[in-house]
Amino acid sequence: MKLVLLSGGSGKRLWPMSNDSRSKQFLKVLTDGEGSMQSMVQRVWRQLERAGLAGDAYICASKAQVEMIESQVGDVPLIVEPARRDTFAAIALATLYLTDVCGVPDDEAIIVLPVDPYVEDGYFAALVDLEFDLRASGADLALLGVEPTEPSGKFGYIKVARHAADGNVAHGEPRGYMRVEAFVEKPERAAAERLMAGGALWNCGVFCFRAGYIKEILRRKEYPYSYGELCAHYDEVVSRSFDYEVVEQAESVVAAAYGGAWKDLGTWETLSGEMSGQVAGLGVAVECVGTHVINELGIPLVAIGLQDVMVVATPDGILAADKSQSGQLKRALGLLRYPERPMYEERRWGHYRVLDYTKLADGTEVLTKTVVLSAGRNISYHKHLMRTEVWTAIEGTGELFLGTQRVEIAPGDVVRVLPDQWHAIRAQTQLTFIEVQRGSSLVEEDVVRRFVNWQDIKAHCTALAT
Amino acid sequence: MKLVLLSGGSGKRLWPMSNDSRSKQFLKVLTDGEGSMQSMVQRVWRQLERAGLAGDAYICASKAQVEMIESQVGDVPLIVEPARRDTFAAIALATLYLTDVCGVPDDEAIIVLPVDPYVEDGYFAALVDLEFDLRASGADLALLGVEPTEPSGKFGYIKVARHAADGNVAHGEPRGYMRVEAFVEKPERAAAERLMAGGALWNCGVFCFRAGYIKEILRRKEYPYSYGELCAHYDEVVSRSFDYEVVEQAESVVAAAYGGAWKDLGTWETLSGEMSGQVAGLGVAVECVGTHVINELGIPLVAIGLQDVMVVATPDGILAADKSQSGQLKRALGLLRYPERPMYEERRWGHYRVLDYTKLADGTEVLTKTVVLSAGRNISYHKHLMRTEVWTAIEGTGELFLGTQRVEIAPGDVVRVLPDQWHAIRAQTQLTFIEVQRGSSLVEEDVVRRFVNWQDIKAHCTALAT
Repeated sequence: MKLVLLSGGSGKRLWPMSNDSRSKQFLKVLTDGEGSMQSMVQRVWRQLERAGLAGDAYICASKAQVEMIESQVGDVPLIVEPARRDTFAAIALATLYLTDVCGVPDDEAIIVLPVDPYVEDGYFAALVDLEFDLRASGADLALLGVEPTEPSGKFGYIKVARHAADGNVAHGEPRGYMRVEAFVEKPERAAAERLMAGGALWNCGVFCFRAGYIKEILRRKEYPYSYGELCAHYDEVVSRSFDYEVVEQAESVVAAAYGGAWKDLGTWETLSGEMSGQVAGLGVAVECVGTHVINELGIPLVAIGLQDVMVVATPDGILAADKSQSGQLKRALGLLRYPERPMYEERRWGHYRVLDYTKLADGTEVLTKTVVLSAGRNISYHKHLMRTEVWTAIEGTGELFLGTQRVEIAPGDVVRVLPDQWHAIRAQTQLTFIEVQRGSSLVEEDVVRRFVNWQDIKAHCTALAT
Repeated sequence: MKLVLLSGGSGKRLWPMSNDSRSKQFLKVLTDGEGSMQSMVQRVWRQLERAGLAGDAYICASKAQVEMIESQVGDVPLIVEPARRDTFAAIALATLYLTDVCGVPDDEAIIVLPVDPYVEDGYFAALVDLEFDLRASGADLALLGVEPTEPSGKFGYIKVARHAADGNVAHGEPRGYMRVEAFVEKPERAAAERLMAGGALWNCGVFCFRAGYIKEILRRKEYPYSYGELCAHYDEVVSRSFDYEVVEQAESVVAAAYGGAWKDLGTWETLSGEMSGQVAGLGVAVECVGTHVINELGIPLVAIGLQDVMVVATPDGILAADKSQSGQLKRALGLLRYPERPMYEERRWGHYRVLDYTKLADGTEVLTKTVVLSAGRNISYHKHLMRTEVWTAIEGTGELFLGTQRVEIAPGDVVRVLPDQWHAIRAQTQLTFIEVQRGSSLVEEDVVRRFVNWQDIKAHCTALAT
């Protein structure tokens, strides 16, 4: 049995904390047992480790998320999507990666789950049981459903047969699976009440199937059914959800119930309910009720006399929203016209924060950043075609190759990197510098990379220099 | 007759737009007739010019405000307070400056007013009449009072005799002055209603007196009564309001009524009422009622579902406050613990904005700024003892003296200024650079200045270099 954790798109529902590389699952807003902050991905990965499942788990993510995942959970097996195509394409890709690249047999069970469920450990035990349910029932799909705690209209419902299905008892133990009769998307309250009374479950995006089942579907839909082919034609795959494209069209689906805690922390309203304090970061809330403040900026934030409001300030932007209306966020952002780029990113080598972005009248762009390299990490040997960079070293020490020349870097040193000049830098101790980029195009694509590994860089430069 | 405009302290009532050098009177939040933005000081100064009074007007301000005033209204006569000591000391200083430095006779009338009344032009005509009222009544003081439009509890009231005082008719014209019977500070609503019904006026901080009258008071209170002496002992003068120290103790006070528009724009609640749009700067307000957004930062600000809230983001900080509770601002700021320094300042030579401030573990401070020098302006020839500066030129051209060496500056150039190194820079066209300061003490006081005038700097460096 293999587990695939789907790392979803950025979304805008937690703006300004989420951006293209920092989706909600990477936000360190939860406290772990020891009082330090962790993200949802980190929380789930630790739960998988405790459940002994991490060894069989893969994360399916976009390219933009790779360095963030490595920075947060270390060296985990990754399945990288060539583009964003919703969950049907992602699950197909993951399945073919497992069979074609990892040699997983067609008959093996694959369990797909979101990368960020906010759940108790019992959820992972229930996951493992899904494989048994799939086999025992002979169904195409086995789903995990959450027992509803209220007739909410925010979730999809799985309507199940009231009575246990045949074969529902095995090994002398009562098993939880039930035949699925229908799916109901976000019902009105009255309908939700009837569904709840009838034993329906919340659909929490957990699917168990045999690898071969997905291959058959791809073949039937005339999509490529080898990993290489699918990668090459990924943008031709329909951009639809797995629910719509597979689950609702399956002939036989069973579901098991998970009765523990489960929360959707996808909006400011729900996420703020899990925040431990009223204010995170430099700020103060006076005469506020039901209000939360998150401030990642270095300037103070003051909230006064607000009720049920979420105030969030990050390098990407500032939000002040009535919590119950935070669903309007996507529409509000659509009304804004501004050059959108992530202002904070975690990378394999550390992180950076944009301090200022200016576009001059002649089209020249100027970007000022704080860059922090973790001790022992390095930036690849690369060059830019269109920009000059000026680095002022602030704290820590490092070594730099500029062209092929090796330079020691200490606080106060200034480095100027010209267009077309190869360079790489490695932090000895944690190294912070202020970087001013100036050029006719500061897009991320203005880069040519040669080596990533520091030994390779050193060998290359030393050979050329002598 | 001379006019003295008192430029009050920064206050915190319009934080984060106001700071030590940018008080509320300097905020460009009002629209002028032609659709561009102007500050209250700029608006008042234009009104004085239209009324033909600018030639007799002086601005009394703190040292920190001098460059801002010059930047906004140009070359106006300034009376600079050696320190902040409330209005009694400021008015005494201004009076002695006028008599001792400008040669104004003791019998001449001085009219003191705030630098930022939000009024119609008729206010300035009423000002001029105050001198006549003072002379005609023979009173110690003539005040201007505003006819109340509502029984507000936010203002002080001037209680006047119901009937015109003796001598109230002169030149065959009815004059408006009335004997003042009492002063009532911020009354309860019921009391305010009685005062309003009785013809009381709002005290708007306008005082007319003979110069000699203030000198007599200083003599009686045993304070210095020459300008030089008062400057030297300014910090010994009691820090109290002129109302308390003089007006309420005067034997004979008259008041004239001004019936035109008058607004106190000293809080976000009142100021936002004069703002022309709902959003100023990069931002959007969705499903908001009675809400105003001001954003001076380069990142977007989104407000959703707020009612009667003021959201303001500037380099100094971020505020989200219920308008009716913006009076809590001072208390809220008192609860914050952070290193307070202005993040945006207008100077004689241009302006700067702080992009980032960091204090490292070893106590080293790092400050990153965008600095903009206006064309033809220069920064003085100075040096720092404790800091290194790295400038990356972004836009425009300039000339620099580093030590005594002259260097032309163009976009992309990098300049490193070491501790104890004399330097000055002049913009040929508007010159923008990113400055990274790094040092053991970044306080403003770490500076030794030699010359301000560019001709002097040039002559000095050329002489030494040859």
